[in-house]
Amino acid sequence: MPTSPVPTQSDASKNTAASGLEGVVAAQTELSDVDGQAGRLTIRGYDLEDLAGNATFEEVVYLLWYGRLPTQPELNAFQKQLAAHRVMPNEAEAALQLASKRMKPMDALRFVVGSLTADDKDADDESREVNLERAAKLVARIPMIVAEYERLRNGLEIVPPRDDLSLAANFLYQLHGLAPSAPEVRGLDTYLVTVSDHGMNASTFTARVIASTASDMVSAVTGAIGALKGSRHGGAPGPALEMIQAIGSPDRAEAWMRDAVQHGKRLPGFGHRVYRVRDPRAEVLSQAAEDLADETGEQQALALAREVERVGVQVLSEAKPGRHLNTNVEFYTALLLSEIGLTPDLFTATFAIGRTAGWTAHILENQETGRIIRPSSEYVGSRDRRYVPISERG
Amino acid sequence: MPTSPVPTQSDASKNTAASGLEGVVAAQTELSDVDGQAGRLTIRGYDLEDLAGNATFEEVVYLLWYGRLPTQPELNAFQKQLAAHRVMPNEAEAALQLASKRMKPMDALRFVVGSLTADDKDADDESREVNLERAAKLVARIPMIVAEYERLRNGLEIVPPRDDLSLAANFLYQLHGLAPSAPEVRGLDTYLVTVSDHGMNASTFTARVIASTASDMVSAVTGAIGALKGSRHGGAPGPALEMIQAIGSPDRAEAWMRDAVQHGKRLPGFGHRVYRVRDPRAEVLSQAAEDLADETGEQQALALAREVERVGVQVLSEAKPGRHLNTNVEFYTALLLSEIGLTPDLFTATFAIGRTAGWTAHILENQETGRIIRPSSEYVGSRDRRYVPISERG
Repeated sequence: MPTSPVPTQSDASKNTAASGLEGVVAAQTELSDVDGQAGRLTIRGYDLEDLAGNATFEEVVYLLWYGRLPTQPELNAFQKQLAAHRVMPNEAEAALQLASKRMKPMDALRFVVGSLTADDKDADDESREVNLERAAKLVARIPMIVAEYERLRNGLEIVPPRDDLSLAANFLYQLHGLAPSAPEVRGLDTYLVTVSDHGMNASTFTARVIASTASDMVSAVTGAIGALKGSRHGGAPGPALEMIQAIGSPDRAEAWMRDAVQHGKRLPGFGHRVYRVRDPRAEVLSQAAEDLADETGEQQALALAREVERVGVQVLSEAKPGRHLNTNVEFYTALLLSEIGLTPDLFTATFAIGRTAGWTAHILENQETGRIIRPSSEYVGSRDRRYVPISERG
Repeated sequence: MPTSPVPTQSDASKNTAASGLEGVVAAQTELSDVDGQAGRLTIRGYDLEDLAGNATFEEVVYLLWYGRLPTQPELNAFQKQLAAHRVMPNEAEAALQLASKRMKPMDALRFVVGSLTADDKDADDESREVNLERAAKLVARIPMIVAEYERLRNGLEIVPPRDDLSLAANFLYQLHGLAPSAPEVRGLDTYLVTVSDHGMNASTFTARVIASTASDMVSAVTGAIGALKGSRHGGAPGPALEMIQAIGSPDRAEAWMRDAVQHGKRLPGFGHRVYRVRDPRAEVLSQAAEDLADETGEQQALALAREVERVGVQVLSEAKPGRHLNTNVEFYTALLLSEIGLTPDLFTATFAIGRTAGWTAHILENQETGRIIRPSSEYVGSRDRRYVPISERG
């Protein structure tokens, strides 16, 4: 007989169910690795810090799908392919008009993306080649949907896309009706690269589960958008910016944040479930926000954010010693995206633009392995009830 | 030191990833239990055989959401509540027109359901009461969407809903423009009850993952529809009917099926991953198809299906001894739904009408437990690559 207790299936099951599958490996992936203890995010073998700020979003989309960075001719062809997909089926154009009336941004995005099977002529062709084309369409069209929705809901004309601009530049051009500055484009590219993939997060997992039933890529990405909408997943950059704006000036930061923490409130933009020492994405975005402020000369918002960060870390270290609650990706997302001219309620939709790279890469990867993802549940309900006709129920 | 080897995290992880989480408990549930070894499906304590054929779909929706069968006054009030939701926001009506042009049924359903947040006035209210109202709207509206889409794509006028009919009866009325017969309604109720819930299947799991991010119920059901669309999940009743139609007459069954099996083809409608001895849903649907044929007097299709079943089981037991490949839920779904007058390419959408009961019940249950479902992945990709500027890539 064994001398050490071995956990039973049932013990393991209960722990797994209670912890939301935390630590359970749902898939093997070559796409990205989140090392929370070391504060390290690896994307296809590269440290995030090495990609973000250096590579454009298109380079990283290519890297995720094809496994290596493109050469210049490959990148040129890839950008041309993506730009050629900056046209949407009539159903999506009409859906955008409907969505702009009273749907919020993530609801609008989920709805309009759900129409994008309309012009898929090869619906039964699940070859990798056709799926790469579908992925390119999604990456090209999702920023268009966000920008065109924003124009329409503000009563403005849609700005037609330009095929001579990069994805980030065209998004800002369609959003604002003006060619963006090079620092703005660089800042947005850095953001999109930074959020392009992040292991088996809930929206990526959703995309893989849907794809694993042999459903289509649009269905998988539509489901992922629905998951990203949830406040426990992608919904927090807005509140971080609102806090910074509520604080208003650097000298008010300490009183405001001490008061909030004393009243038991969470400070949005601080702390992360996985990253214990540092969030590499926060550092990258912090640098990008600083670079952009240096180039535009608009330092006020950055100075405020820096003071909120300094005071917040101090206040939290006193209130919750040993927890290492540093600024997270949402804190500097809020700062960087507002510097670029995005309103807070578009932050999560902009997150979706970047994460579409990872979603589509995971769907493509799942399509190659091919197994349906279907866990079990543990039944803890009633047993042995007998149907009683309704006339006899008391 | 322990004397028996204990599996390491890594061993367990690899097995889990390779098997698509099979056997991993993702949630505890009081809703349903699938016992594959015993061939038993329990819904809220009742054997499926005890509910299907006895309870209406509305009774089982009530049972899933509230934990017990309703009394007559409760059922009357519940039916009235559901019937009152047989009206859709303008966005959904317009989306239906768009969807009817060239979208297939499940794409259309995913797209139109994605619009249903448009008239949600309490978007930030996640109380159980408001979520039950959202669930009622979805259960009431999804059959309307399927029926109205079917009318529009065939160039017919939409038939306005009637609030004096049950859900099953109103669906058939809106679909065919005629009040359905009592046997047809009973047959459809039996079908909807039979597919109302089935443990942690891939679409239900999708709904729970999305809901667990604190996203909304429409997002979760939209994602579930996308998963159900996949041929490995909900897509097989059509092919089973196509096979029966291709065989055409009982005397051709043996030659046709022996030929198919000899050429290595799978016979649609036979075998199940989980159920080893019998699929209780197949028996319930087989009985319902027989009852309906007895009442309508149309015996020909049933006789053909019975012969296809008898021959198929025999041919498969010879070709794959010991595998117990019996007819599954899809085989008799195909027969029953075609008896009721549904075309094969609406079968999966009709499945969605029934499964919406389970999806919404699981979302409500998940909202009470509240934990995000977020597994891990195992990184098996490259490491320690260094970014090289594009001009230096070879």
